[in-house]
Amino acid sequence: MALDRKIEQTGKHLPPLSRGFDPLEYAERVAGLQRQMAQADLDVLLLTSAADLYYVSGFLTRFWESPARPWFLCIPATGQPVAVIPAIGAELMGRGWITDIRTWDAPDPSDDGVTLLVDTLRELTEGRRQPRIGTPMGLETHLRMPLADYHRVRDMTAPATWQDATDVVQRVREIKSEAEIAKIRVACGIADRAFARVADFADVGLPLDGVFRQFQRVLLEEGADWVSYTAGGAGQCGYGDVISPADGRLLQSGDVLMLDTGAVWDGYFCDFDRNYAIGAVAPDTAAAQAALSAAIDHVLDTLRPGHRACDVHRLLCEQLRQHGAEPGGGRLGHGLGLTLTEWPSFTPLDQTELRAGMVLTLEPGVEIAPGRCLVHEENIVLRDTGPELLSTRAPRLLPVLGAQQ
Amino acid sequence: MALDRKIEQTGKHLPPLSRGFDPLEYAERVAGLQRQMAQADLDVLLLTSAADLYYVSGFLTRFWESPARPWFLCIPATGQPVAVIPAIGAELMGRGWITDIRTWDAPDPSDDGVTLLVDTLRELTEGRRQPRIGTPMGLETHLRMPLADYHRVRDMTAPATWQDATDVVQRVREIKSEAEIAKIRVACGIADRAFARVADFADVGLPLDGVFRQFQRVLLEEGADWVSYTAGGAGQCGYGDVISPADGRLLQSGDVLMLDTGAVWDGYFCDFDRNYAIGAVAPDTAAAQAALSAAIDHVLDTLRPGHRACDVHRLLCEQLRQHGAEPGGGRLGHGLGLTLTEWPSFTPLDQTELRAGMVLTLEPGVEIAPGRCLVHEENIVLRDTGPELLSTRAPRLLPVLGAQQ
Repeated sequence: MALDRKIEQTGKHLPPLSRGFDPLEYAERVAGLQRQMAQADLDVLLLTSAADLYYVSGFLTRFWESPARPWFLCIPATGQPVAVIPAIGAELMGRGWITDIRTWDAPDPSDDGVTLLVDTLRELTEGRRQPRIGTPMGLETHLRMPLADYHRVRDMTAPATWQDATDVVQRVREIKSEAEIAKIRVACGIADRAFARVADFADVGLPLDGVFRQFQRVLLEEGADWVSYTAGGAGQCGYGDVISPADGRLLQSGDVLMLDTGAVWDGYFCDFDRNYAIGAVAPDTAAAQAALSAAIDHVLDTLRPGHRACDVHRLLCEQLRQHGAEPGGGRLGHGLGLTLTEWPSFTPLDQTELRAGMVLTLEPGVEIAPGRCLVHEENIVLRDTGPELLSTRAPRLLPVLGAQQ
Repeated sequence: MALDRKIEQTGKHLPPLSRGFDPLEYAERVAGLQRQMAQADLDVLLLTSAADLYYVSGFLTRFWESPARPWFLCIPATGQPVAVIPAIGAELMGRGWITDIRTWDAPDPSDDGVTLLVDTLRELTEGRRQPRIGTPMGLETHLRMPLADYHRVRDMTAPATWQDATDVVQRVREIKSEAEIAKIRVACGIADRAFARVADFADVGLPLDGVFRQFQRVLLEEGADWVSYTAGGAGQCGYGDVISPADGRLLQSGDVLMLDTGAVWDGYFCDFDRNYAIGAVAPDTAAAQAALSAAIDHVLDTLRPGHRACDVHRLLCEQLRQHGAEPGGGRLGHGLGLTLTEWPSFTPLDQTELRAGMVLTLEPGVEIAPGRCLVHEENIVLRDTGPELLSTRAPRLLPVLGAQQ
């Protein structure tokens, strides 16, 4: 709470929280991964995604936006990680705690790091007759390297076997440290302050894409390093979906305006939305608003470690129906942290056990009319005693914007 | 040129160019891919990346930032593409020209679209004894779906064979239509205007991360839909690399400040940087500046369709050395369009033939001192008659910022 107040007091200045992490925290992360690797009997773990590399090495750059080059981090069963990366990243990686950094001059159409990666994997599994190499292959993961090169690496590391290491990574990354939670709290605070200024730039007759542009500007002014995600919508009786970019449609009296953002601070995301009434909205929209608020309140009161992801879906749906609302389809929340969304998913199918230290979004939606929905979202960290809000709880009544106010 | 003037006149307003593409243009893109598929003897092409899906379907959303769900587009040898996507995207996809849209309720841990995709692939290859299914597997590509699910799809589509379709996609996408070039020109114009305002927010004693934040704000004010990439650096005798995010280091007299951006308009990127002197810079920095300008001028004068990517690398290096400068390592430019960087790469190894209609960056760098570089970048479209600038040519002399000016 002290941190929140300090950040709010800085106004438009940068939050006082320091960037990066203590080297001890990185050591703990590697130790955690190596414990999971031992359980899965893995000799080496190969990571290729921006989030996984940042988590282990602290390597943070927007250069992942360029698909040109693959980046590899190899974690042995014991000992220190080895970075196998394009030379263009050596300087930045060298500023972090990883000391074994091997580079090649990418992109190289004949051998884009394949030989260097294979040599490294062989070295890290030396003495093993049939090494077991793990990399994430499951839900919510991608292998960020050319598929043909992956098959080349597999062939060249024979007789090693390749294992799905999704669980190895997810069971560690999903429990956030206090330092990680503090960064997500900073990102949430930035969005809180930007949402509080929406009345300054949204009104009847203004185009939705202009509102989106102003919203991003204000997120930067409030301290976001960058704004990786904005979405939203506007319309009578809710909006059509929650993933569209804005078009030039003008805001009209009676619209609900929704803005959603993943603003980033030091590599960590917030992900929550806010809804606004442009003048007076229809009674069924107000009723949906009340049902969504009540459903979130109930989960904030009752959620505990030991619940499963599917329990949250059930709780939210039950509450919405008790309040006369029809739950929307899809997942009603998810994990959050190094990417805009992380596992688990609040669906009827996800059995993941929720544990203290998980950062989650509660994201119930209500279908007001066919194809028209209203969606609420809050960001929380699950503690032993229940949820602790990271976003400032949305107002119970839709804030009214515009001249009619 | 008329377009440029119109956009400039709009100042802070939106560019007048219309969003989206004519349905005929999408039909031509599909026909182009199908011609390449015929040459490669492919029965169906599977696309999974944000850029490929936007190119074929017009499906544009920042929701790709969420790694939770895969998205598929299947192009048969003849006939119309089929979208196989999570239900959350049906509304947005339905606004475009694709009519065959099949959805599942993602994320589903037991079957995240695998069965629906396999059924679609079987349907599109019906009657073929051993269908040939292509998907990009080469340099600069990733398969954006869980690797385990890819292997499941392969097993379930047996006896189909899976082929690398990198060339199929790249030979089509690399030639930009006039409508695409116009959008990239809009993105470049936005960056041009933002670079012209750097003196308003960069000066001695200001922190680099604050300058980055202001730069992103100004890009939005000048009309960017969003800012997917900023990088840069500052220092005496150049900067250490060109991919780092900013830190809190204060700008000092004698620094060179570099800002680089990929600002996005209607899904199309610009990618160029600009350099500024914070007060007077050292003579070797000014000499590097002159050599870089001369090298770019030479390529602008001499580059023609029929040159190969490696020729551009050679031309730039020759010119830099003639002007007494030492070329930096790595690639000295690349393709540009739907992502921040596209193939080909201006390296000694890339033999790709350059053709009229390619949009490219010229990005020579000079090593001023060990680990300190200066990098210039311009965006061009290659015409039959040679390069046409899309960015406004950088000034020959480093613009001087700050009180010393």
